Amino acid sequence: MLTPHHDGSPLHVSTQDAALGDEVIVRLRVPNGAKPVVRAFVRSNPDHEPVWAVASRDGSACGWEWWSARVTVANPRHGYRWALVHDDGTTSTLSQGGHTKLEALDAVDFALVAGNTPPEWLADTVLYQVFPDRFARSAAAEGRELPDWAIPADWGDPVDPEQPGRGHQVYGGDLDGIVERLDHIQSLGATLVYHTPIFPGRSNHRYDAARFDVVDPLLGGDDAYLRLIEAVHRRGMRIMGDLTSNHSGDAHEWFVAAHGHPGAPESSFYYFRDAAQTEYESWLGVPSLPKFNWNSPELRRRFIEGRDSIVAKWLDAPYGTDGWRIDVANMTGRLGAEDLNSEVRGILRRTMVEVNPDTLLLAESTNDAASDLQGDAWHGAMTYPAFTRSVWAWLAGPNEDAWFFGIPTGLPGYTARQFVDQLQRFTAQIPWRVRLGCMQPLDTHDTARFAAYAAEGTVPLAVGLSMTLPGLPVVFAGDEFGLVGTDGEQSRTPIPWDRVDEPEIAERIALYRDLIGLRRRYTALQTGGLRWLHVDDETIVFVRESADDTVLVLASRGRVDVALPAPLVIGGIGAEKVFGEATLGVAEDGSAVLTAEGPVFAAWLLPGVVAPPATA
Amino acid sequence: MLTPHHDGSPLHVSTQDAALGDEVIVRLRVPNGAKPVVRAFVRSNPDHEPVWAVASRDGSACGWEWWSARVTVANPRHGYRWALVHDDGTTSTLSQGGHTKLEALDAVDFALVAGNTPPEWLADTVLYQVFPDRFARSAAAEGRELPDWAIPADWGDPVDPEQPGRGHQVYGGDLDGIVERLDHIQSLGATLVYHTPIFPGRSNHRYDAARFDVVDPLLGGDDAYLRLIEAVHRRGMRIMGDLTSNHSGDAHEWFVAAHGHPGAPESSFYYFRDAAQTEYESWLGVPSLPKFNWNSPELRRRFIEGRDSIVAKWLDAPYGTDGWRIDVANMTGRLGAEDLNSEVRGILRRTMVEVNPDTLLLAESTNDAASDLQGDAWHGAMTYPAFTRSVWAWLAGPNEDAWFFGIPTGLPGYTARQFVDQLQRFTAQIPWRVRLGCMQPLDTHDTARFAAYAAEGTVPLAVGLSMTLPGLPVVFAGDEFGLVGTDGEQSRTPIPWDRVDEPEIAERIALYRDLIGLRRRYTALQTGGLRWLHVDDETIVFVRESADDTVLVLASRGRVDVALPAPLVIGGIGAEKVFGEATLGVAEDGSAVLTAEGPVFAAWLLPGVVAPPATA
Repeated sequence: MLTPHHDGSPLHVSTQDAALGDEVIVRLRVPNGAKPVVRAFVRSNPDHEPVWAVASRDGSACGWEWWSARVTVANPRHGYRWALVHDDGTTSTLSQGGHTKLEALDAVDFALVAGNTPPEWLADTVLYQVFPDRFARSAAAEGRELPDWAIPADWGDPVDPEQPGRGHQVYGGDLDGIVERLDHIQSLGATLVYHTPIFPGRSNHRYDAARFDVVDPLLGGDDAYLRLIEAVHRRGMRIMGDLTSNHSGDAHEWFVAAHGHPGAPESSFYYFRDAAQTEYESWLGVPSLPKFNWNSPELRRRFIEGRDSIVAKWLDAPYGTDGWRIDVANMTGRLGAEDLNSEVRGILRRTMVEVNPDTLLLAESTNDAASDLQGDAWHGAMTYPAFTRSVWAWLAGPNEDAWFFGIPTGLPGYTARQFVDQLQRFTAQIPWRVRLGCMQPLDTHDTARFAAYAAEGTVPLAVGLSMTLPGLPVVFAGDEFGLVGTDGEQSRTPIPWDRVDEPEIAERIALYRDLIGLRRRYTALQTGGLRWLHVDDETIVFVRESADDTVLVLASRGRVDVALPAPLVIGGIGAEKVFGEATLGVAEDGSAVLTAEGPVFAAWLLPGVVAPPATA
Repeated sequence: MLTPHHDGSPLHVSTQDAALGDEVIVRLRVPNGAKPVVRAFVRSNPDHEPVWAVASRDGSACGWEWWSARVTVANPRHGYRWALVHDDGTTSTLSQGGHTKLEALDAVDFALVAGNTPPEWLADTVLYQVFPDRFARSAAAEGRELPDWAIPADWGDPVDPEQPGRGHQVYGGDLDGIVERLDHIQSLGATLVYHTPIFPGRSNHRYDAARFDVVDPLLGGDDAYLRLIEAVHRRGMRIMGDLTSNHSGDAHEWFVAAHGHPGAPESSFYYFRDAAQTEYESWLGVPSLPKFNWNSPELRRRFIEGRDSIVAKWLDAPYGTDGWRIDVANMTGRLGAEDLNSEVRGILRRTMVEVNPDTLLLAESTNDAASDLQGDAWHGAMTYPAFTRSVWAWLAGPNEDAWFFGIPTGLPGYTARQFVDQLQRFTAQIPWRVRLGCMQPLDTHDTARFAAYAAEGTVPLAVGLSMTLPGLPVVFAGDEFGLVGTDGEQSRTPIPWDRVDEPEIAERIALYRDLIGLRRRYTALQTGGLRWLHVDDETIVFVRESADDTVLVLASRGRVDVALPAPLVIGGIGAEKVFGEATLGVAEDGSAVLTAEGPVFAAWLLPGVVAPPATA
């Protein structure tokens, strides 16, 4: 892996917050031992037509030769790549698609994003996901009357994976319950509480909202939400809600007003297919989830546009939440020949900025999210193929019987190399800045729990990778308790607070605390660049690098005995191990040598930091 | 290459002309000897959310096992892929990105395109590109007075690559000259005459139009164009014009009206940057090419929208041309944060359909064209990286000094394998139907001539590949005369008609005639599927298959001795060689064996055709 390197991190790009027309310096580095570069160019593609900037050789530092070039940001997504001439006359191209002799596709260009900068606090955020009905139950929950659709369950009852229990069991977790457990969340090191919907619906998950302007009384109502928000903020933490922009429930006040009532002002909010307004489009054909028609200006006004909208209401005083996760963002505004998605997400984000620009907007986009993730609105996504599915395939697969995101061929088995290949494939089309906002869950309320299928000893690898690879770390509440639900419904098990002191659980909680701690301690793990040092079928080694610190990471399912050429590990001698059971030694030729018995996850703080020479 | 196969061709897809809501049958085939498939699924992605169809096993034929599934076309570009379970429990995915254990990106899905079907005549079209000033000069050209900008040149004068000769030498080729040479074009087998602009400008290339509603008198004016169109049509051939939608010349009547004249109706047609309307956006900063502002409804009305527009005028009676090639289509409507491209191309195509749906619309998009080529408007593109640049790199590279599309690192050298890799990379994101409309020139008026740099003996390979790979074959007038201009200006050499009988030229013309003949004779080469049978560093072998015929193609720079497993070559025994010097034999084990001394291009008509079993 002695190849030229560039990525979107601050060591290689002079600003993370460019505006159209700004000049940005981009830097390339070439390790000693790689085929030398004698000329270098940066190709930009303004308005879809290539222009070339000549790069200058800036000098050498720590075994690397550095080049730089200036590019002027021409488009909201400004793609660029390196074109290199080597000392033997051969040429190569470096893009997010890799270092290759062939030309690169525009889609895998490195990319600067102009505007829509994510909040600064995203950098050291660790997200903690709460499913309110199952998280914690306050004393106030005792007396609450259940709605007609609810099937009451006691905290220790098993989750019923079948209808009617599925979706309708109510355990009575509530918002004051979350307040009571903020100590736990904070002690893990998580900084952002993300909760699934809290608006009234006719299910325990509430993705079938009946209205968006009040908090479900079953969760404690608006006042409880205010208490939660305040309690979170008092601790210096943040909170993010969940909004369904693709559909409402069929009990939604807007749908009730429109359904069967031609002429109702809300008629335009949905896709009615008959004059009587009784037939309509819905999410995957499920009648209880009628799909919004975003052509409607009135829907936009009420829901997403401007300070009087739903989107604004909960970010605004007195509530003041810190962002939105948008459910089924991938399908929003899309139907047949119509695609209003980019318009809708643009309006939604503009409204957020109007209320409070220091907010985060994440899209649910469970498969290949690249086409929507060019930085114009979503700061990142809850997306699974890049990290989640590839880490499952490496560390939990193969397993034909595992519930694997509805994929009928089941959970495949990957080598470590295939894990890296899939991670690269699904991040190559996403600008670096947006990649940092993409969630890296091991599981969520929509999946089985990773631990249910993990190969022995691999949980630390998976959690460790989620905290050390570029992206937004996520803990789905209950993972730290070792929960093992085997599908999206059964992963919604109530949190077993009474078992928190059991040794296995305490150990798992400590594991999370330690690994979250790593992530929060080192700038390199938050915003640093990523270089792969070694990948084989069992083992991966990479380094994250920032101007502040350098962290080396090892993950392997098997025995490790790997030598890394000297220039790859800057300041490798005297490294401080900060996690795991492994050894970083130095061979006679100066190579770093990693040894361990696997499965292993280990990390070292390297004593040096990358310090590029001044640009020419 | 014993792998499952699918592509967008009629053997594998039940219709090339689907509408939204249609059910389409897609077929997969698995060769004997490949890892058997025990379950198969087709993943579609309607409105960006995966749905899975179960495929049925239809039976076996000629050493292949066939599967089929039904998909309902949900979006204008309906992406789909195959997900397979093998007999050993492993899984794989087949998409345009290849056959892989990893998940595929949405962008490389196979794709059905609903609507905007290209004209049927595209299938057997061979395009012949004419640069009017340099093609042929009629007697009428003698008396014509030259405009002030023109520098007169005699037919035998060298092309001056420097200013002021560059762009301003006028050789006096005209439209009646083309009429006089239609015998030549038709005898080659070409069917579509594409000429670069014929509207008046202030250059010999006329990409700086002064108006769009009359033909340059220097070329013979409107009447000569009528004569040319009629003559072409009388021969059963077709003709396509060239329109600059990104910019006009600064002598354009619209620009003259607007420039420095605030309040002029044409003020909105351009991007003026000051109140006095003297500063403006232009193509790559060239002041003589002011950029159109497609926000202007009046510009749309005059130029591209409706039956009174420029776009309509030339397709309509009395002219009746058969399509448009749109210059700088990639930049059209794009500037900074604004991107009106999809809107503009949509309007443009709708206007064409209004006048005559049986017309072709091609976009110039000289680099990665995939993002604009999803089938909504452009039927294909004049694009270079997939075919042209990769064939150059294989057969003419490396050459640091070659003028290579403005790429400052020069012409790289590829192996045959890299040629195939780049071809695959740059076509994988384009739906099959649109790929068939993508031009495969060896060169054009904007490039050097391939023959100027071709390695010895490789011209037949390059021409052969342009005629036999999926895509639209192109002859840039003069290639068949062996012209060797070394950049885009010098490739515009006048056609040496007086040398047509020289043995070398006659031989080259015969080569073109033979290879065009192949293309026009076999359905497989026009619309058949493509399967790679063998690729190594020197040699490629592929087969094109239709229900009517099967053609095997070999191209190699070196000596060939290649065995192909039996199931790959259906009906291989008794093949009829239809081009080239090579031998197709049969080994004892039934494998086909190809032998030749390279460089070689050869093709065989195989006696069998692919006949899938009935779908379940």
